[in-house]
Amino acid sequence: MSSVTDVDVGAYLAARGGLVDDALEAALPAADRPPQILHQAMRYCVLGGGKRLRPVLVLASAEACGGTPQAVLPVACAVELIHAYSLIHDDLPAMDDSDTRHGRPTCHIAFGEAIAILTGDALHALAFHLITQSSSGCGAERTLVAAREIAGAIGTEGMVGGQVLDLLGEGRTFPAPSPGLPVGSIAEFVPQIHVRKTAALIRASVRAGAMLSGGEPATLEALSAYGEQVGLAYQIIDDVLDVVGDERALGKHAGSDAAKATYPAAFGVAGSREIAARLTDEAVAALGPLGDRGALLRDLAHLLLVRER
Amino acid sequence: MSSVTDVDVGAYLAARGGLVDDALEAALPAADRPPQILHQAMRYCVLGGGKRLRPVLVLASAEACGGTPQAVLPVACAVELIHAYSLIHDDLPAMDDSDTRHGRPTCHIAFGEAIAILTGDALHALAFHLITQSSSGCGAERTLVAAREIAGAIGTEGMVGGQVLDLLGEGRTFPAPSPGLPVGSIAEFVPQIHVRKTAALIRASVRAGAMLSGGEPATLEALSAYGEQVGLAYQIIDDVLDVVGDERALGKHAGSDAAKATYPAAFGVAGSREIAARLTDEAVAALGPLGDRGALLRDLAHLLLVRER
Repeated sequence: MSSVTDVDVGAYLAARGGLVDDALEAALPAADRPPQILHQAMRYCVLGGGKRLRPVLVLASAEACGGTPQAVLPVACAVELIHAYSLIHDDLPAMDDSDTRHGRPTCHIAFGEAIAILTGDALHALAFHLITQSSSGCGAERTLVAAREIAGAIGTEGMVGGQVLDLLGEGRTFPAPSPGLPVGSIAEFVPQIHVRKTAALIRASVRAGAMLSGGEPATLEALSAYGEQVGLAYQIIDDVLDVVGDERALGKHAGSDAAKATYPAAFGVAGSREIAARLTDEAVAALGPLGDRGALLRDLAHLLLVRER
Repeated sequence: MSSVTDVDVGAYLAARGGLVDDALEAALPAADRPPQILHQAMRYCVLGGGKRLRPVLVLASAEACGGTPQAVLPVACAVELIHAYSLIHDDLPAMDDSDTRHGRPTCHIAFGEAIAILTGDALHALAFHLITQSSSGCGAERTLVAAREIAGAIGTEGMVGGQVLDLLGEGRTFPAPSPGLPVGSIAEFVPQIHVRKTAALIRASVRAGAMLSGGEPATLEALSAYGEQVGLAYQIIDDVLDVVGDERALGKHAGSDAAKATYPAAFGVAGSREIAARLTDEAVAALGPLGDRGALLRDLAHLLLVRER
């Protein structure tokens, strides 16, 4: 990867991220609109930064298929709203019970638990309100197919199902027996969680961008493989950076993550980095049929692998 | 309302309710499919009975516009899934903290709080997966418009916004100030809650059925008014039946509901019944432009007013 290309993908991320930020700002209800507390919480959780990976992948995939960023921007915003809703619910006391995210109080700490649940629900609904707007210029047929793709990726076969597997894997007890817990070692279990919990929405983001832009079947197949492998690699590096960050902050090996169903817990830091590198290679190889149109997505995959935050 | 008509609407409700029950059974993931606990919880919450009012209104509205029940069945199921998800989240400890619903343990009592949150989220996603299936025979354009109608009705301008107003109205305290709480008496506040919390989805159900079936603008306008007024009357009678039921069960005036933002608390039982009767008259009057095609919806409105459970 040449340094010129690095500049290109960095500039692309900055430009498209800014486009998404502006569109999210416009799509969210104004903070002074009643009920204010709800709208304030929605804005707090969505506009507080973030890499905008999923929406940028919608845009990049659309552009690789000859589409324009503007035409897919509502769907790009929608996948970010869905991501934000999932984090709010994941952080709840009954789930991961997290007090901070990105160095700020989580939604339920800042606004109370009831408002946090409803803020997630409102973002979920707003996402589909955005996806289904027919003014996007992609046509109703394509828009409907993309909407269905995303809805399928965030349900029991995807994001929510993965979150349930994650909860089961943490060894929490449930009133009912949990025959859904896969039998086997953590090394078998962890990929199953993260394919659903993280990779499914990232894969759907890539696919939706292509679907909205009329990507051919072979292109769509290539982008599906790319999306799933990049999505899984992204989660692995996230977990690795958590461990490395904890080690730096604590000045010792971070043991708290060992109990969680993460790649570093299952494969160690070095082993996890190797898996992520292999997945990235596979993702890039899958882009073959796109030729030059895949250059940006290829560079993006490499950038995500070597990122340090 | 003649007794012959009573039989007709009763038979219609039974037949269409059965159609919806069968379609819901088929749409929900099998209970033995992993993660089983999630799928068991989804089925427990959706298949445990219920009047199927919202889906039947989708079907009845579609039929009033010349559509077939089969073509709108996925959307009919979707609004029931959304209704079920909203009840699960409403019942959570951080919200209404209800242990029972329809005489059975609520979702979080039966399956734990984390699974209950995720069950609601999964039903929400499944609803949009159903709505956006393009095989419904209504065409992509109409399907997309109906999907957007429903997404708009369950967000901050509708169901979720109403639930937030309800929480604010119960005088719960929030970390942030609540300037969203309307100033004025409970009599001014209660209708604002219920128009959003209950009537918005019922109105959207009626409108979606018409939109999917190519209802003319004048018909759609008539059905919108009908849907909102029937939706509000439905909530009022629900609250009245709660009070009457409590009085019967306790053998005395039920005081516990007085603190809640309900129509009986604001207007008394007799006053609430009068308001519901007036709204029903208005709903029926709004059906004027439909002529004979509105007969079933008219009888349905009357039946909902005089129901005893």
